[in-house]
Amino acid sequence: MSTTTLRRYVSQLGHNEQVSQVFLASDKQLRPNRNGNLYLQLQLSDRSGAIATRLWNASENDYKAFENGDYVLVDGATQLFQGNMQMIANSIRRARQDEVHEADFIILQSDEIDRMARRLAEILRSIRTPELRNLVECFMMDAGFMAKFAACPAGMKNHHAYKGGLLEHVVGLMELVLVVAPRYPQLDQDKLLVGAFLHDASKTDELTYDRDIAYTDEGQLLGHMVMAMTLIDEKVREAERLSGEQFSKALVTEIKHMVISHHGEYEYGSAKLPMTLEAVALHHLDNLDAKLASFTQLMADCPNVESNWTQYHANLGRKLYKGARIEERGTSEH
Amino acid sequence: MSTTTLRRYVSQLGHNEQVSQVFLASDKQLRPNRNGNLYLQLQLSDRSGAIATRLWNASENDYKAFENGDYVLVDGATQLFQGNMQMIANSIRRARQDEVHEADFIILQSDEIDRMARRLAEILRSIRTPELRNLVECFMMDAGFMAKFAACPAGMKNHHAYKGGLLEHVVGLMELVLVVAPRYPQLDQDKLLVGAFLHDASKTDELTYDRDIAYTDEGQLLGHMVMAMTLIDEKVREAERLSGEQFSKALVTEIKHMVISHHGEYEYGSAKLPMTLEAVALHHLDNLDAKLASFTQLMADCPNVESNWTQYHANLGRKLYKGARIEERGTSEH
Amino acid sequence: MSTTTLRRYVSQLGHNEQVSQVFLASDKQLRPNRNGNLYLQLQLSDRSGAIATRLWNASENDYKAFENGDYVLVDGATQLFQGNMQMIANSIRRARQDEVHEADFIILQSDEIDRMARRLAEILRSIRTPELRNLVECFMMDAGFMAKFAACPAGMKNHHAYKGGLLEHVVGLMELVLVVAPRYPQLDQDKLLVGAFLHDASKTDELTYDRDIAYTDEGQLLGHMVMAMTLIDEKVREAERLSGEQFSKALVTEIKHMVISHHGEYEYGSAKLPMTLEAVALHHLDNLDAKLASFTQLMADCPNVESNWTQYHANLGRKLYKGARIEERGTSEH
Amino acid sequence: MSTTTLRRYVSQLGHNEQVSQVFLASDKQLRPNRNGNLYLQLQLSDRSGAIATRLWNASENDYKAFENGDYVLVDGATQLFQGNMQMIANSIRRARQDEVHEADFIILQSDEIDRMARRLAEILRSIRTPELRNLVECFMMDAGFMAKFAACPAGMKNHHAYKGGLLEHVVGLMELVLVVAPRYPQLDQDKLLVGAFLHDASKTDELTYDRDIAYTDEGQLLGHMVMAMTLIDEKVREAERLSGEQFSKALVTEIKHMVISHHGEYEYGSAKLPMTLEAVALHHLDNLDAKLASFTQLMADCPNVESNWTQYHANLGRKLYKGARIEERGTSEH
Amino acid sequence: MSTTTLRRYVSQLGHNEQVSQVFLASDKQLRPNRNGNLYLQLQLSDRSGAIATRLWNASENDYKAFENGDYVLVDGATQLFQGNMQMIANSIRRARQDEVHEADFIILQSDEIDRMARRLAEILRSIRTPELRNLVECFMMDAGFMAKFAACPAGMKNHHAYKGGLLEHVVGLMELVLVVAPRYPQLDQDKLLVGAFLHDASKTDELTYDRDIAYTDEGQLLGHMVMAMTLIDEKVREAERLSGEQFSKALVTEIKHMVISHHGEYEYGSAKLPMTLEAVALHHLDNLDAKLASFTQLMADCPNVESNWTQYHANLGRKLYKGARIEERGTSEH
Amino acid sequence: MSTTTLRRYVSQLGHNEQVSQVFLASDKQLRPNRNGNLYLQLQLSDRSGAIATRLWNASENDYKAFENGDYVLVDGATQLFQGNMQMIANSIRRARQDEVHEADFIILQSDEIDRMARRLAEILRSIRTPELRNLVECFMMDAGFMAKFAACPAGMKNHHAYKGGLLEHVVGLMELVLVVAPRYPQLDQDKLLVGAFLHDASKTDELTYDRDIAYTDEGQLLGHMVMAMTLIDEKVREAERLSGEQFSKALVTEIKHMVISHHGEYEYGSAKLPMTLEAVALHHLDNLDAKLASFTQLMADCPNVESNWTQYHANLGRKLYKGARIEERGTSEH
Repeated sequence: MSTTTLRRYVSQLGHNEQVSQVFLASDKQLRPNRNGNLYLQLQLSDRSGAIATRLWNASENDYKAFENGDYVLVDGATQLFQGNMQMIANSIRRARQDEVHEADFIILQSDEIDRMARRLAEILRSIRTPELRNLVECFMMDAGFMAKFAACPAGMKNHHAYKGGLLEHVVGLMELVLVVAPRYPQLDQDKLLVGAFLHDASKTDELTYDRDIAYTDEGQLLGHMVMAMTLIDEKVREAERLSGEQFSKALVTEIKHMVISHHGEYEYGSAKLPMTLEAVALHHLDNLDAKLASFTQLMADCPNVESNWTQYHANLGRKLYKGARIEERGTSEH
Repeated sequence: MSTTTLRRYVSQLGHNEQVSQVFLASDKQLRPNRNGNLYLQLQLSDRSGAIATRLWNASENDYKAFENGDYVLVDGATQLFQGNMQMIANSIRRARQDEVHEADFIILQSDEIDRMARRLAEILRSIRTPELRNLVECFMMDAGFMAKFAACPAGMKNHHAYKGGLLEHVVGLMELVLVVAPRYPQLDQDKLLVGAFLHDASKTDELTYDRDIAYTDEGQLLGHMVMAMTLIDEKVREAERLSGEQFSKALVTEIKHMVISHHGEYEYGSAKLPMTLEAVALHHLDNLDAKLASFTQLMADCPNVESNWTQYHANLGRKLYKGARIEERGTSEH
Repeated sequence: MSTTTLRRYVSQLGHNEQVSQVFLASDKQLRPNRNGNLYLQLQLSDRSGAIATRLWNASENDYKAFENGDYVLVDGATQLFQGNMQMIANSIRRARQDEVHEADFIILQSDEIDRMARRLAEILRSIRTPELRNLVECFMMDAGFMAKFAACPAGMKNHHAYKGGLLEHVVGLMELVLVVAPRYPQLDQDKLLVGAFLHDASKTDELTYDRDIAYTDEGQLLGHMVMAMTLIDEKVREAERLSGEQFSKALVTEIKHMVISHHGEYEYGSAKLPMTLEAVALHHLDNLDAKLASFTQLMADCPNVESNWTQYHANLGRKLYKGARIEERGTSEH
Repeated sequence: MSTTTLRRYVSQLGHNEQVSQVFLASDKQLRPNRNGNLYLQLQLSDRSGAIATRLWNASENDYKAFENGDYVLVDGATQLFQGNMQMIANSIRRARQDEVHEADFIILQSDEIDRMARRLAEILRSIRTPELRNLVECFMMDAGFMAKFAACPAGMKNHHAYKGGLLEHVVGLMELVLVVAPRYPQLDQDKLLVGAFLHDASKTDELTYDRDIAYTDEGQLLGHMVMAMTLIDEKVREAERLSGEQFSKALVTEIKHMVISHHGEYEYGSAKLPMTLEAVALHHLDNLDAKLASFTQLMADCPNVESNWTQYHANLGRKLYKGARIEERGTSEH
Repeated sequence: MSTTTLRRYVSQLGHNEQVSQVFLASDKQLRPNRNGNLYLQLQLSDRSGAIATRLWNASENDYKAFENGDYVLVDGATQLFQGNMQMIANSIRRARQDEVHEADFIILQSDEIDRMARRLAEILRSIRTPELRNLVECFMMDAGFMAKFAACPAGMKNHHAYKGGLLEHVVGLMELVLVVAPRYPQLDQDKLLVGAFLHDASKTDELTYDRDIAYTDEGQLLGHMVMAMTLIDEKVREAERLSGEQFSKALVTEIKHMVISHHGEYEYGSAKLPMTLEAVALHHLDNLDAKLASFTQLMADCPNVESNWTQYHANLGRKLYKGARIEERGTSEH
Repeated sequence: MSTTTLRRYVSQLGHNEQVSQVFLASDKQLRPNRNGNLYLQLQLSDRSGAIATRLWNASENDYKAFENGDYVLVDGATQLFQGNMQMIANSIRRARQDEVHEADFIILQSDEIDRMARRLAEILRSIRTPELRNLVECFMMDAGFMAKFAACPAGMKNHHAYKGGLLEHVVGLMELVLVVAPRYPQLDQDKLLVGAFLHDASKTDELTYDRDIAYTDEGQLLGHMVMAMTLIDEKVREAERLSGEQFSKALVTEIKHMVISHHGEYEYGSAKLPMTLEAVALHHLDNLDAKLASFTQLMADCPNVESNWTQYHANLGRKLYKGARIEERGTSEH
């Protein structure tokens, strides 16, 4: 992309814009139209969103010119079709490496992820309760786990649903713990930090996120809360091996309880309701961080730019009020 | 108890009966009445139920004459008080061993439990899928687990809430599987048998049942469904050690899924809804066996002997219709 | 269909297959496209499912060449369009009788239905309670009712939603009763058999099923559970006329109670919750049979052949896990 | 009762009142107190309510001096005990007929019931649709049914729960129909009148109300809405017999639909939701009349005379605001 | 429109009708089809409904030939497309004033609105309680408020969702009060009239309705029930200023309570449940009027003219039964 | 109280303790027992709780010796009765002023309240948005309001249900805002502070709390959320008067929206769901503070001192796990 032209992010595209820039390609299909002519259909995306795209009168060669997952340079124009923006491409070719600006395609840059990973380690090392400290060390020593933890999204949708999203959510939550727990002396901050660290930890195995985000079979059949039981058991055994001492059974139970109860209500898949002060605090802080992230993103992604309101979100049972203040993620920091 | 007089079971006692027989004592308290005179209050029970009892004008000596958990010989008379039957005792003394007929105080006799334990082993050995067979062998080889499994009740209340109740429920359920599964060729009978065997297995640690039935802390904070994850993981590791082969991860996941989903609905603490055919079948068969046991017991325990209806059960949202047909447990087999 | 070519069932068709075989036609419409040219749109089906079909550049003659409900021979090719398979036909003509293999178009063959009807009669004759035996005889003597009973589907969708489905479901349920009831001596097997026989009996009038399956006005306004009251009253009057004796009013009430409570919960239209042991048992057994049939069919009908999971079913609140084991109905038995 | 002394109704009694007047006796029991002395416990009631009563140091003779259901003359004094008013009787004897003023013991006087029965007949005769007119004639010709209809309460509790209450509720509802239906030309007033007449008609068999109000077995197992199907079928057959013509099946279905859907929601036992205009209107008008009657009675019965609020009613989820305006039933008309 | 040809209302249009008459235009868009040719897409409506319309091969001139909100004369033909009726226009031009028959485009004619406004004033003047009379005078003296009250719809959808709908609903409700209240002497008719008048009064500011009906920001964030608190406070202050006397605080509270509780259940946004007799009566009468209006309109608007049933309405959880009796609004009065 | 004897707080009293110290008296009643002898019944309380008390063989003089609300010196002994602790007093007399240690009877000391009031003012003055600053100034200038704000409890029960509890909850919540808001740049901290300040502000008029805590009529009929609309309107008018400028209507609406939506769900009486980021944040932070306060208090008040668990709390649907760590409020700070 030329240094003189600013990129138009997908979320910025309006009706009838001429576009000539790099996108990430996926979901390509060669299909016949009703007159039997072939066209190429695909998704083009950058970090701000995705747009359905068609190349009319396409050939087998057009189809083979690139792979899903490739960066492609696209010439085309946008068009509002049945309420959604789509792109009609005139040409699509694989982009040269020097045409690609990687930062346009990831929401969290690698240095941001590194910074958050260091912050996570720093906070975990602030834990003073010996057994809990040993336990988190066992997690930190597991390089494979930590790598997945840093790469994993926090979910399929709703909030932090992108690579690094889990780390971002967890660090954010632990920062909250650090400022909130001191205000409630009845809370055990160390337990709460461990709960925040581990509450979603098995999302690393509940989801696949090499390319797309999806559930694993195990993730779908058991869920990350139940899967975390096995993960915690493993690390507790390791902590016992390293320390040569029995880990307190009551403490393991409290940690597991924070994890399996953190959704707060049976209807959200909590096997138990929160029954300890730390479990209650974790549930509410997690909810606060997740809802703020989710609502902010829904406002930012909202295509009704001229309205004070987002569309109606059936799962929330409401529209959200953007006021005149919210700016789109993805672009405001560029 | 004299061989000529038939015992009157607690559930058979009516207003104004003279009683002179052995009971199990519990919950004794020495208390002052409103005039400052002391009286002894306690529970007397046998296998058919319990009755509140008072000994007026009691002394410290009366209080110390026996311990909770002792068999005591009681002379007294029954009285309807505020809708409940109570007993006014004239004398209470520790019973001699020859006065006690143990079978009057347990719901499941030890030979019944033995017979069911043998039947459980027999059914488990009918499993033909090698991995599942190895897994259940690991459970059967664990004598401590099997002993707890045979002693454990199936719950605090509702159904099979007495020693041996878990075994009775599980064997009953597996017998159902043996007759029902052949009618549905799409079901994997071996998986379903393992599911039936393990679905409540961690009740052995969720509950304490040496004397009274109660929840353990772990049981209350995690619940038997979540606790079973650790139990299954342990036995899978053992099965791998014995066989020298990796246990199929997908198979472990399916077994765990049956366990954590067997309550069928989120509101009953299922972390997941049943998503496999075996999980669905297990949920419905478990429900059938549990509900029939529970309703039968509620009808049998119902004190309104002259009515066609039990009292209103708020948790069920209904009364039950006994018709003219139901007879009381505890006595019909004597 | 030629003896040498195996039929490709609708559920087996993939993208870009050439097809030349017989289908059942329905929903034909002659419509203009956006350029004003006419095309013919219709549904083609066999026993494994249905596929939307278009014949471009069609004429009035093409439209009149066959009727809805006719068997037609179609030449064409399949195409994936917006995630669904559709067929582009090159020609459609009415099929000759010798080209049609009737068994390809019905889920339950007439000999299967006959066999089930005989089995139903056999089980009903096993009833020993005189009044109940008389009552079921009155139903069996009503040839019109029995014919409808054998032809009726068990519902509009969900489970057994095809001709003969009611009979298949009811016989399956009664077979369950025969193996399950003996395990619970507190159950009256005869009552339970009558409950299983009659619980959905008024579906014969709740639905129409000569061609399509639909609700009658009465079915929609009253429902089969309420409609069954009238049906049972009629047969009880007849039983009284034949026997010359008054039918036990309490027994009629228990039978009606099983029928109106068998959905188990108010939210599923049960006017009462199950209050007798037989009503509880019927509810759970019915649920077991219906859910297994429904889940099995959803797995079999699932078009995502390459996935371990069915699509998300909103009414069930979940996806189903097919594993690697399930094969499609409609073809596995051919 | 002397002509110079005004009766103190049960609902008017305060703490520490001397009482010497006639009550209706029920629930008598001779019981020992904690010192072994006998006392007589019973309920005394009049049309305004009931009061628990004790006669200390009672003998077998006191117990036998009257029967439950007798009118008794009581000397005693009232006392507030644990928040409820009770009476300590000094003497209780059977009342002479000339001491009893029957009107003090029934909520609806017989001339009121007669007047309402005549009004019911008058309204029913205003129906002009021939088939509906014939149908209601068949009900009116059934003297046994009409007698039960005039005697039956409208329920066990909630609203109009006294003899004649059903008639009072139904006539009140039909009067509402007469003034409301003309405002909605889309409503068929005749259908709506029949719906109002029959919606609770099988309460005549759902309840027993000779002495106490209770459910019959059939009432509990089927409910009045389902039971009405049989009642309507009977009268339709009779109407056909009398007129020699087939009754419109669609019309019967609409009438039945109004009956089985009039509770409006599945959770209140409606087998179907209202789907016709008349069914919707009937549901809302019935609700209006029932709720106003129920709230008015709760306000009138409220023992907190000095508060603006009734107690909290858990089934309503609220207290009711009486303001300063409501006067107690039972006494205001005396 | 010619005096000799009767208008075909939108709701009357069937497949393949030739149309040449005046409509109201909205939502016009000029869009390219898949071949790049432009077409004009718009909505055409009259008082009976709206129809999607396309003009193929349109030009920029066609697009500019009229504005949204203009009356246009359209020549075209109707077509059933994917289950919905659409129109293919051959020509569209702005209509001359003499071609427009205004009454075809509004549901409530201005003389109807005037008549209802006079009736509203008449009923309000029948209020005899001095404070309430003063209060309603303050509303009536506010010409701006009364003008909005007469123009406002009663909602976005569901019932009375057209200009003047609020007035129609409120007057209808007050007429109900006038006939129903006298039947319940425990009701204060004046309070109930004021409640009926004000219950939806802040819809005048919750909605905008100059052109389309939409929510204001304030309406969406607070809702008309909460907004009414401010409105009532204003008028109470004014009433106090005019009368020179303090308005009864308890009375204001009762009026506000009727308003904020009139939806009857928390789940419908009632901040409180109805706790006074008038609040209960208002809730049920409002519900009756609203549901009858809504169901009647759903039946009238139902496009399945040949069926006894409307389509399934998910928000109602049911289809509605039209029977053979309902005729379409919009046309029956022409 | 003597300096040498430590007070035994009500929450510390066990079975059979001799007590001679000062309590606050309330609810005194002179009542006859079953033998006609009079006794005095009353409540004795201090800041840690209340205990039911009886003085046997009391006279009219005993009754008149003190008033409800007096401090009394009591000699007596404790006794466990039906699971609850009660006190049998030997003598009760009005306490001399020098015997009373006021701090034993209030949960929040006046200097604590003063300190919190100063902190509230300090935080409010940190608000920088001019309009919001003006608005909160108008509240702070209203000495009557601020006095009530400092005295008011936060509710009838659940959390902070004591004098000064509202202030404690609000300041605690605003402190949370000060540490949490900076972590979410998308939040407007000033709006959120105002929301926290005002969300429960009308509890000052919803409740009475001079002696006991109770609802006002207005509080019960409207609730503090709705009542706050009037309060905010008043202060906005005042702010406009003072500043001579129109207050932003959009801003008032956002503030009101935070207030009426802060319960988060319709079922908790929220008239609207939170639709702005600040409303969402307020809801979750309020919930966090309230739940931690409530759970901590339930654990502290729990009379099962020897158990790890509190009793079952039906409104929470669970027991709470105290672990071995929680100490009783009331005493830990003495």
